[in-house]
Amino acid sequence: MRILKEGDIVCLMSEEGKKWFVKLENKKFSTHEGIIDLSQIEGKKPGGFVYTNINQKLYFFIPSLEEIILHYVKRSTQIIYPKDAGYLILKLGIKEGMRILEVGTGSGAMTLLLAHYVGETGRVFTYERREEFSKKAKELLQDFGLEKRVSFFTEDIEDGIREKDFDATIIDVREPEKYLIKIVDCLCAGSSIGIVVPTANQVSAVICSFENLPVADIEICEILFRKYKVNPDRLRPYDVMVGHTAYLITGKKIVV
Amino acid sequence: MRILKEGDIVCLMSEEGKKWFVKLENKKFSTHEGIIDLSQIEGKKPGGFVYTNINQKLYFFIPSLEEIILHYVKRSTQIIYPKDAGYLILKLGIKEGMRILEVGTGSGAMTLLLAHYVGETGRVFTYERREEFSKKAKELLQDFGLEKRVSFFTEDIEDGIREKDFDATIIDVREPEKYLIKIVDCLCAGSSIGIVVPTANQVSAVICSFENLPVADIEICEILFRKYKVNPDRLRPYDVMVGHTAYLITGKKIVV
Amino acid sequence: MRILKEGDIVCLMSEEGKKWFVKLENKKFSTHEGIIDLSQIEGKKPGGFVYTNINQKLYFFIPSLEEIILHYVKRSTQIIYPKDAGYLILKLGIKEGMRILEVGTGSGAMTLLLAHYVGETGRVFTYERREEFSKKAKELLQDFGLEKRVSFFTEDIEDGIREKDFDATIIDVREPEKYLIKIVDCLCAGSSIGIVVPTANQVSAVICSFENLPVADIEICEILFRKYKVNPDRLRPYDVMVGHTAYLITGKKIVV
Amino acid sequence: MRILKEGDIVCLMSEEGKKWFVKLENKKFSTHEGIIDLSQIEGKKPGGFVYTNINQKLYFFIPSLEEIILHYVKRSTQIIYPKDAGYLILKLGIKEGMRILEVGTGSGAMTLLLAHYVGETGRVFTYERREEFSKKAKELLQDFGLEKRVSFFTEDIEDGIREKDFDATIIDVREPEKYLIKIVDCLCAGSSIGIVVPTANQVSAVICSFENLPVADIEICEILFRKYKVNPDRLRPYDVMVGHTAYLITGKKIVV
Repeated sequence: MRILKEGDIVCLMSEEGKKWFVKLENKKFSTHEGIIDLSQIEGKKPGGFVYTNINQKLYFFIPSLEEIILHYVKRSTQIIYPKDAGYLILKLGIKEGMRILEVGTGSGAMTLLLAHYVGETGRVFTYERREEFSKKAKELLQDFGLEKRVSFFTEDIEDGIREKDFDATIIDVREPEKYLIKIVDCLCAGSSIGIVVPTANQVSAVICSFENLPVADIEICEILFRKYKVNPDRLRPYDVMVGHTAYLITGKKIVV
Repeated sequence: MRILKEGDIVCLMSEEGKKWFVKLENKKFSTHEGIIDLSQIEGKKPGGFVYTNINQKLYFFIPSLEEIILHYVKRSTQIIYPKDAGYLILKLGIKEGMRILEVGTGSGAMTLLLAHYVGETGRVFTYERREEFSKKAKELLQDFGLEKRVSFFTEDIEDGIREKDFDATIIDVREPEKYLIKIVDCLCAGSSIGIVVPTANQVSAVICSFENLPVADIEICEILFRKYKVNPDRLRPYDVMVGHTAYLITGKKIVV
Repeated sequence: MRILKEGDIVCLMSEEGKKWFVKLENKKFSTHEGIIDLSQIEGKKPGGFVYTNINQKLYFFIPSLEEIILHYVKRSTQIIYPKDAGYLILKLGIKEGMRILEVGTGSGAMTLLLAHYVGETGRVFTYERREEFSKKAKELLQDFGLEKRVSFFTEDIEDGIREKDFDATIIDVREPEKYLIKIVDCLCAGSSIGIVVPTANQVSAVICSFENLPVADIEICEILFRKYKVNPDRLRPYDVMVGHTAYLITGKKIVV
Repeated sequence: MRILKEGDIVCLMSEEGKKWFVKLENKKFSTHEGIIDLSQIEGKKPGGFVYTNINQKLYFFIPSLEEIILHYVKRSTQIIYPKDAGYLILKLGIKEGMRILEVGTGSGAMTLLLAHYVGETGRVFTYERREEFSKKAKELLQDFGLEKRVSFFTEDIEDGIREKDFDATIIDVREPEKYLIKIVDCLCAGSSIGIVVPTANQVSAVICSFENLPVADIEICEILFRKYKVNPDRLRPYDVMVGHTAYLITGKKIVV
């Protein structure tokens, strides 16, 4: 049974459902529901609550991967959405023991997921040109104690990829078609390829560049996510929803 | 680097993209592209190909979790779709070391995913009333060498749940509202709850029964998945798509 | 060729695409793009432009029915969206010469569409309990010179429907199931019925009450509308879209 | 009150909801529910029924525009769907008295709708290169007595457009970008333009060619339509839906 301890990231939630994500340390945290001492939560089991100085209940939880991606990750760049990330994890067959190449670390959200799912015996190799992103992503992984499963490269993969024999790759950069030859070359035969692009033009560019590469079983998809209001007598979707995040392109490297 | 061996489940794919999923054993397998000896594939690396007796190429791969769910699992019952399963895995925060309660083993597709993601140190406890489903699900897990991470119970949970202190639960039965008191009672505080139901009326029934239970952070959603034709010059979605699979309801157990 | 004249409703549009909807009269109109004299536009052909006092171009158009519904109608109540209204017009077979019963005038948006499409020889009979809505809807119809095609009743149809032999009906009230017997009774055999409800529970209630009524060919649907950014090199949907407006239920009265 | 007469197109519907669309004439019509004499229906009011020779009820209705488009029109080419057509009618502001230019008559489904909605005082000018389509579309309009509101041209508009001063245009041809200069030139200032294309690449091509034309207020959209099963106790969408029909592009001609 888990006990919350200093350094853990927790989700605080008011009775109205408003959430905050913080690291447990010896300091005060203030919200519009009042102030708490974060150290009060240490030693407790998740799912409990504390009272703020103005007597409001704040529940505390271990955040799910969905919450971490959506709410904890600093959105300095476009994040990957849980609806897309969850599908890719299954579609690419990510599992324990795998060696994954990530091209475009970005916010580190996908890096975190991959690090979770490759387990103790797998490893993620992630490339990012922009130093500030690479640095923040590393901090994110440290927040969850997963940085030891990841090799961070603050490099442009145009200058070469340092390892080989990856079991899968996820690519989330502006012009993926430019790098595909190099990337596919580093994959084991049979490896899965996942590419995340926001525009239809990019989809066409990627598919075109696949034509000269040993890639088969190509699929293009998009995923729409719709939330409903939590009212059993008046069940209906929310008025507004996310209209687009990304197109997902997947394929497999083959031997030719 | 992985080498395919006897007993492995492989995906065979023709050059036109037609797929078959078979277990490698010492026997012939015939398709409209001709016949192969499955033992030919043993000892090879995934991503390669063999020729059939009529000289057609068949590629062979290790199937992804998405393919296993969609194509390998015997659909004796409604399966869970990858779009839904992938989201739930993230939303419920499924990860290594967790103890998961699955109510309604069904085809075993979700059981397989959970067994993958709880890793060597986690465990899945799955309940199913109907013996033939329980049996088939167990065989499915055996096909992938994951049965040792799962406890199968061919029992109605109305008669009691044998363990306690689960970190998460996934419920996929016809009348989930009947069992929620018992199920929630067995969860650790802070645990995630995921419920899969096909109809709007069931959503209302579940939300109603949550009203008297220590459950917060309730979300109701549905996920739509749309595939595009792989043609870079005439990019467009397929004419037909899946219109509905299930509504997903999630929440968290709290201390009251 | 149309010439704009006093009393016409026009759409003004800045070069950035911001729109305003106003009635042409002898007065000034001010926007963040500057001020114009509305009478300047009288006598001109639509599609032209005027300069504001700070030298910004404002184009003027005759607004389409879509623009009128979305932007000109006062939204004192839930409006019907063009995606839903357009489908219903075709599904119910609304055309010139028809006698239409509208239950729930609301904002008058649907009344306006119906009045357009029944032509000179048709007629719309619209019921609304709340006097302020009835009054505003009548003003809306007057703005477009269509009030003479409509009979407004500020009455609860529970107290009776004054006419008979309608060719179609559109119902947009909170509890349609309460009134269906009375409404169906007033329709010609073969008439189309359209019902607009926001919640799944209302859909079930309506379908249940149809079970004892001479109604066949029942259909339930919802329509999702997604806009794309107007950028040919980076084509993609907008980040946000409307997630829900209404479920549409349709059927036909039969002879029993 | 309408009475069905020889030459009318009627919808026949079995008690299970299966539909047939036929012209009333002095002949027998046979279905798997048995045979009827179509002349039996003449002189009757819509919404009634006849018995077949094997004693099955067949209801008869005047088909709605939605049914005519979806079921009666010969699908020798891609049809326009009611969800798209209904929206375009409102978005382009089609109404009585308008002069409409249709480029690409195709099956004639949109021609029929336009002819309905321009009324006695409007007119549709429709161009189609392929003689067999033009001929069938004319027959379709004759079936509904609307051919006198339409001028059919079996010509390529590349060879010129014979009239001018249209109030709106709908374009449904393979390469609309080729004709846009000519078409826009024939429109009144302020006129609406609607273009129907199936692929994302065509959307980009059209938007590019708009860049040099006097067109403003450009919108790109797509519409998804989802039907629900008619079961009040188990309300849920159908398993399968149409995944794509077309992207709709609209704009307005301005004076420059």
